[in-house]
Amino acid sequence: MADEAGPAGEWGWIEDGAMLSQDGRLLWVGARADLPDDLANTADQVHDMAGAVVTPGLIDCHTHLVYGGQRAHEFELRLKGASYEEIARAGGGIRSSVTATREASEHQLYAQAAHRALALMAEGVTTLEVKSGYGLSQASEAKMLRVARRLAELGLEVRTTYLGAHAIPLEFQGRADDYIQAVCDWMPKLKREGLVDAVDAFCEGIGFTPAQTRRVFETARLLGLPVKLHAEQLTDQGGTQLACEFGALSCDHLEHLSEAGIAAMKASGTVAVLLPGAYYFLRETKLPPVAALREAGVPMAVSTDHNPGTSPTLSLLLMLNMACTQFRLTPEEALRGVTVNAARALGLRDRGQLQAGQRADFCLWDIDHPNELSYFFGRNPLRLTVRGGVPRG
Amino acid sequence: MADEAGPAGEWGWIEDGAMLSQDGRLLWVGARADLPDDLANTADQVHDMAGAVVTPGLIDCHTHLVYGGQRAHEFELRLKGASYEEIARAGGGIRSSVTATREASEHQLYAQAAHRALALMAEGVTTLEVKSGYGLSQASEAKMLRVARRLAELGLEVRTTYLGAHAIPLEFQGRADDYIQAVCDWMPKLKREGLVDAVDAFCEGIGFTPAQTRRVFETARLLGLPVKLHAEQLTDQGGTQLACEFGALSCDHLEHLSEAGIAAMKASGTVAVLLPGAYYFLRETKLPPVAALREAGVPMAVSTDHNPGTSPTLSLLLMLNMACTQFRLTPEEALRGVTVNAARALGLRDRGQLQAGQRADFCLWDIDHPNELSYFFGRNPLRLTVRGGVPRG
Ligand SMILES: [Zn+2]
Ligand SMILES: [Zn+2]
Repeated sequence: MADEAGPAGEWGWIEDGAMLSQDGRLLWVGARADLPDDLANTADQVHDMAGAVVTPGLIDCHTHLVYGGQRAHEFELRLKGASYEEIARAGGGIRSSVTATREASEHQLYAQAAHRALALMAEGVTTLEVKSGYGLSQASEAKMLRVARRLAELGLEVRTTYLGAHAIPLEFQGRADDYIQAVCDWMPKLKREGLVDAVDAFCEGIGFTPAQTRRVFETARLLGLPVKLHAEQLTDQGGTQLACEFGALSCDHLEHLSEAGIAAMKASGTVAVLLPGAYYFLRETKLPPVAALREAGVPMAVSTDHNPGTSPTLSLLLMLNMACTQFRLTPEEALRGVTVNAARALGLRDRGQLQAGQRADFCLWDIDHPNELSYFFGRNPLRLTVRGGVPRG
Repeated sequence: MADEAGPAGEWGWIEDGAMLSQDGRLLWVGARADLPDDLANTADQVHDMAGAVVTPGLIDCHTHLVYGGQRAHEFELRLKGASYEEIARAGGGIRSSVTATREASEHQLYAQAAHRALALMAEGVTTLEVKSGYGLSQASEAKMLRVARRLAELGLEVRTTYLGAHAIPLEFQGRADDYIQAVCDWMPKLKREGLVDAVDAFCEGIGFTPAQTRRVFETARLLGLPVKLHAEQLTDQGGTQLACEFGALSCDHLEHLSEAGIAAMKASGTVAVLLPGAYYFLRETKLPPVAALREAGVPMAVSTDHNPGTSPTLSLLLMLNMACTQFRLTPEEALRGVTVNAARALGLRDRGQLQAGQRADFCLWDIDHPNELSYFFGRNPLRLTVRGGVPRG
């Protein structure tokens, strides 16, 4: 079993372990030999792990899972030598996803997103974050977030993030400040509809400025909403320091993160969400400062960043390998990155560890050691997922 | 449908297509509207493709699928900072796979390899090449090859390659030429047992010299066995030119391939097998000369190179994305790389294309266009595999 490294030693490994759950929570976790008789009689579920390795349910804490269409044709055009300008002229790029998302019915969006969510669940994902950001109008952002909420019907927990500040829609072209005003105006309405668990923005040379990001975050603060940020992916904008001023849950990407940014994250307890799929797909060469983050004790999470433009992956297990192979995380860090630290990136303290009191969300794997989850790539050894104490598929 | 690009245009695309098969072979392939009435009555199988995209069955033409153990612990040690020397001293590296393979019973080897083969089949693989090379003794190489042959029981076709010249076993340390003599001595015996379809070697600074490789190939030629080569992966040894002298079916890896090597491949009709999983896992930076191979008209195949040391992947679909993302193949080239060109790399002309007379091995995919097979990574949209005209799971 892997859980928070502690007295149990490396990987939180428990040999011949046992777990008891009750009412969807873990009641007791330990070595089978230590199982107290009285507790064993109280529990309402006995899970036979039968030689499997058990980990917490996986948490994908950064996705753009809901969108219309896909962009395989654009991928093909680029490999045939088309420039970004030619692709944009052919209607490609993020705007094509915005158009397709606006045009799609809620039912269509749900059908597509459900396929994607089921693929993630097939690898043990029990909690999923989904961002808006391809609607870019109040109605379309609301539509995306409603679809995201509905994914819970599939049998996983969904956390929604409002990412109105993802890109500037055509109707606001050249008026970024006006668009940011609109993003801020929509926020209380979306919140009232129960659609927003957190607020995010894309702070980047090709995105929004720190000043614009600040306006979004100030509105979120007034509404009591936690924030996170797409920060320092392509350039160092100092967005991380800004986000940490607002006590951000996470800063995500971080390839160009500075020492000042790391210090700010350490001070605010902000999680570094690493997204190796986007790094791979974009053929980036600047690595996030993993050794310095480790040294500073900043918690590191790992996620798919699933999106049609820069990370069309549906395998969180593959991200474990990519985090190790590309970013040099250890396999244990990678696993903590999709469990306990991913939970923290979502502000959740009730999951991500196999400990009494935590949600009874866990995975049984047909492996001998959890390091195999990172070592193999393109292999799914999941035997069974248990969510809230209930086995699924 | 994707098949050899020809008069049907890009991707060999046939809109609203139909196929007839008889006795395990394709009898007719074309647009449904063109289906001749008399043939429709002759066919013994009617496959309802119901909106799916159809491709030839996938062919993984370069794997080391049979071996004992795995090396996740070594992967973890390296990420925790251990040097190659420390890992070797701790019993790691290829020698640990040789030891585990020698110690494993035939039944144990089969059980492990079958799991791996089933994972490949779950993505549409219908023909699989498997190399020996972790036994490094006559008995152990024979054991590996028998296990490889037995994988056919799972419902796919297996081609076996004798790779005795993979590494020098401990008992021959410092006596590479003696070991090559042994490799050559074992070859006719293994061939007599029906275990060898082709012969391979690892020609590299850390492997065998061109002169030693030549001895292996000369023995193969005397026995009428086709050859292939692990060539120019880490350095340019000129192994490709040597292999092409022997009319090699394929040269594989090729990151350091020279212009002279490309010219030799063109002249001998040798297939270039690209292995993007090993490139990725080893964090290589020197790309194979894809543009020059394309220019010269050398056929390019793509494969997993599944092995425990440098490419522990079990997803051929992921290799399509890696071939595009890393090596800049087009999605169509990538698909041809795991169908028609992979067949050629195995000397097979009866599969890899959807054409009358070819084996009725094909896959139905829940996608709108075959470029999606390369665009997504870590996603498996396979609906159904048909092999020899018979649907499988
Ligand atoms: Zn993102
Ligand atoms: Zn190989």
